[in-house]
Amino acid sequence: MNACVDTAGIAQRVRWSALDNAERLRVLQRPGRDGAPALAQSVAAIVDDVRRDGDAALRAITARLDGVELQAFEVGEAEFAAAEAMVPVALREAMARAAARIEAFHAPGGLQEYSVETAPGVVCERLVRPIARVGLYVPAGSAPLPSTALMLGVPARLAGCAQVVLCTPPRRDGSADPAVLVAARMTGVHRVFKLGGAQAIAALALGTAEVPACDKVFGPGNAWVTEAKRQLAQAGDVAIDLPAGPSEVLVIADAGADAEFVAADLLSQAEHGPDSQVLLVSDAPALLAAVEAALARQLEALPRADIARQALQRSRLVEVEDLEDAFALSNLYAPEHMILALREPRRWLGRVTSAGSIFLGDHTPEALGDYCSGTNHVLPTDGAAHAWSGVSVAAFQKTISVQAATPAGIAAIGPDAVTIAAAEGLEAHANAVRLRLPEARA
Amino acid sequence: MNACVDTAGIAQRVRWSALDNAERLRVLQRPGRDGAPALAQSVAAIVDDVRRDGDAALRAITARLDGVELQAFEVGEAEFAAAEAMVPVALREAMARAAARIEAFHAPGGLQEYSVETAPGVVCERLVRPIARVGLYVPAGSAPLPSTALMLGVPARLAGCAQVVLCTPPRRDGSADPAVLVAARMTGVHRVFKLGGAQAIAALALGTAEVPACDKVFGPGNAWVTEAKRQLAQAGDVAIDLPAGPSEVLVIADAGADAEFVAADLLSQAEHGPDSQVLLVSDAPALLAAVEAALARQLEALPRADIARQALQRSRLVEVEDLEDAFALSNLYAPEHMILALREPRRWLGRVTSAGSIFLGDHTPEALGDYCSGTNHVLPTDGAAHAWSGVSVAAFQKTISVQAATPAGIAAIGPDAVTIAAAEGLEAHANAVRLRLPEARA
Repeated sequence: MNACVDTAGIAQRVRWSALDNAERLRVLQRPGRDGAPALAQSVAAIVDDVRRDGDAALRAITARLDGVELQAFEVGEAEFAAAEAMVPVALREAMARAAARIEAFHAPGGLQEYSVETAPGVVCERLVRPIARVGLYVPAGSAPLPSTALMLGVPARLAGCAQVVLCTPPRRDGSADPAVLVAARMTGVHRVFKLGGAQAIAALALGTAEVPACDKVFGPGNAWVTEAKRQLAQAGDVAIDLPAGPSEVLVIADAGADAEFVAADLLSQAEHGPDSQVLLVSDAPALLAAVEAALARQLEALPRADIARQALQRSRLVEVEDLEDAFALSNLYAPEHMILALREPRRWLGRVTSAGSIFLGDHTPEALGDYCSGTNHVLPTDGAAHAWSGVSVAAFQKTISVQAATPAGIAAIGPDAVTIAAAEGLEAHANAVRLRLPEARA
Repeated sequence: MNACVDTAGIAQRVRWSALDNAERLRVLQRPGRDGAPALAQSVAAIVDDVRRDGDAALRAITARLDGVELQAFEVGEAEFAAAEAMVPVALREAMARAAARIEAFHAPGGLQEYSVETAPGVVCERLVRPIARVGLYVPAGSAPLPSTALMLGVPARLAGCAQVVLCTPPRRDGSADPAVLVAARMTGVHRVFKLGGAQAIAALALGTAEVPACDKVFGPGNAWVTEAKRQLAQAGDVAIDLPAGPSEVLVIADAGADAEFVAADLLSQAEHGPDSQVLLVSDAPALLAAVEAALARQLEALPRADIARQALQRSRLVEVEDLEDAFALSNLYAPEHMILALREPRRWLGRVTSAGSIFLGDHTPEALGDYCSGTNHVLPTDGAAHAWSGVSVAAFQKTISVQAATPAGIAAIGPDAVTIAAAEGLEAHANAVRLRLPEARA
């Protein structure tokens, strides 16, 4: 098999046309997270503890896992004020501008109410309501992510949710990351609790004396957070935004792409974690080689080079015959992030059937969408983009349908209901209509 | 405790104002399905079998559970033609009119594409794509439900899904219910397979040699179907429309309501199954008594009286002080179906925060929405209406966000990304932006 040329280098090099279908699927397989059954058990134990012992369990788990004894989890006014004082003005202003652009993009994305007269005397409507009680999770493990507070807080506020609660892990000294607190306040989050990991998700889903229960929980997180969301959603305790996995990017680059730019984009994904997934697809072998060289060079300068190097080792540089093949590959994979480093990127948009967020051309690195272009960075991973959308205002809303028939309305359409109900053997359904027909009321 | 007056009658009678919070929650508790752990094991075994042995497993399970040996599951042209000949013209025409009204109401409910310039030189867009491969489940256990084929098939077609596959259980003679087949054809479903229960959901989620795999599975079903959807969604094999439970209705009726109408509405819900949930809430004790009498009378005439009687035994007639209390109770409960048998029903719509579908006034029985008003009858049960919407065109779609920055655009907003990335310690993110700024490119 000379289809897979292990370059003994930075990432695995693959020639797509030389692979059969099974090999192609293997190339597109996500690395997956290790130790799933043990993790599931640990998370289940945490969820059980929180369900049984509430705040006492939260205190014990936080002491054990975060190494800090907290009497109360909620961030009070003093800590918010301290955070405001601590965050540099440049950062606060950058976050405020990012929040404004996020709001500008998200505002038109809510669900719309409408009304249709489906028959004379029969009016059907769709109402839209905010989900009343929402929980936002903002990770702060290897890096605190104030940007995630913006990405979740802005659409929650636009939707008009009545109770917006945010959890973020405490630091060793018992405080929360100040930038996360400033971002939370900026978006109008109502209450912030210093809780991390599976215990935070359990608290939001189940509620405790201190932490209010939520109807839906949002946000990315490590394997523990993701597993807790999965278990609690599955048990029917809470709805969740997305089934989450490690972050990923697929770049499609042509011969004209800038190898330094492409390498930088791959690395900005790879530095997220050793399980991040990076794919580069190109019809230009010279570009693939140039990116590989650039990757090696740029890696040297990165503080998180170790993490990035591990992620790259599980990633792929794929050579395709033409760009049609590149898009077919991408649609199979359904990437969370998709960068089109192409000369005419917009021309190709119509080919994309599944992706979380797309970055067009040489001047739109993923980092723009991660922070401040206006789009959301909470996106479907692990192939979920086949069926799921990223977080939007609509994710914080639900619809209610309404119908109203006049006596003439039910006289017009009621007989259809009677006919179908009778065919389904549901006589009481038919009866509830018949009673109201003019014949019965005569 | 004279708060709970067991009338030894049809349903439990309760006075809301006499209950404390814990008692109120108990009154609103769903009956729940029995035997959950055993069921989960049986379903897991079926899913494992289908995952391992594909069509051979489907054949064996269908023989065991449906009592029929099928060589092929797909419905062919001959069976469709036979079904067309078998379904009475009146039923076909009623279904066609129902489908037209469902289409009229659903058509405006799809997601919209839009574009926003969030900064000079930065354009963000939302694209909308159909979910490519969808699976629809149409039950045919105690009653075949052609109406469900309409409710799922119409929005799938409106969304433009490329592959719409429907499963419905085979009958003892190996055929499918003819009305279900006619409804499926009417809505443009591409392929129909005679498969029921957990094995149908496993086939749709995992795919076999004969049944194509789907990205998302839709539709109601019995406890086996529901559990299979839950397990397969949880394992990340497929997305699902809704976490489903037994069907339920909450009726709010005032002194002016017609007791016969209200009783008929309660019974049309109760006949679905012994685990159906029925709640009547009223500020008029005389109306409650009149409904109880009407229930007893109408029950006598029902073919499914046994099922309805069992469901009513677990249901409640709740007396409230005033209608404000009734809506507070309903918002806690978040009913799938909500009937407002009130003199000015529209006046109260603004109070409803959570419900699946609402029926206004005396002339809009639930059966209209079940069949032919135009709204969808696949709705959130078991309190899921707090966070979930009923099935709509949007449920068959997903969004993709797109951003494009010009060199001037990244020059304008890029520094914000660099600032926030640096604060988050994500240097490669900052670098991917810096490389493209005018300073670097100078």
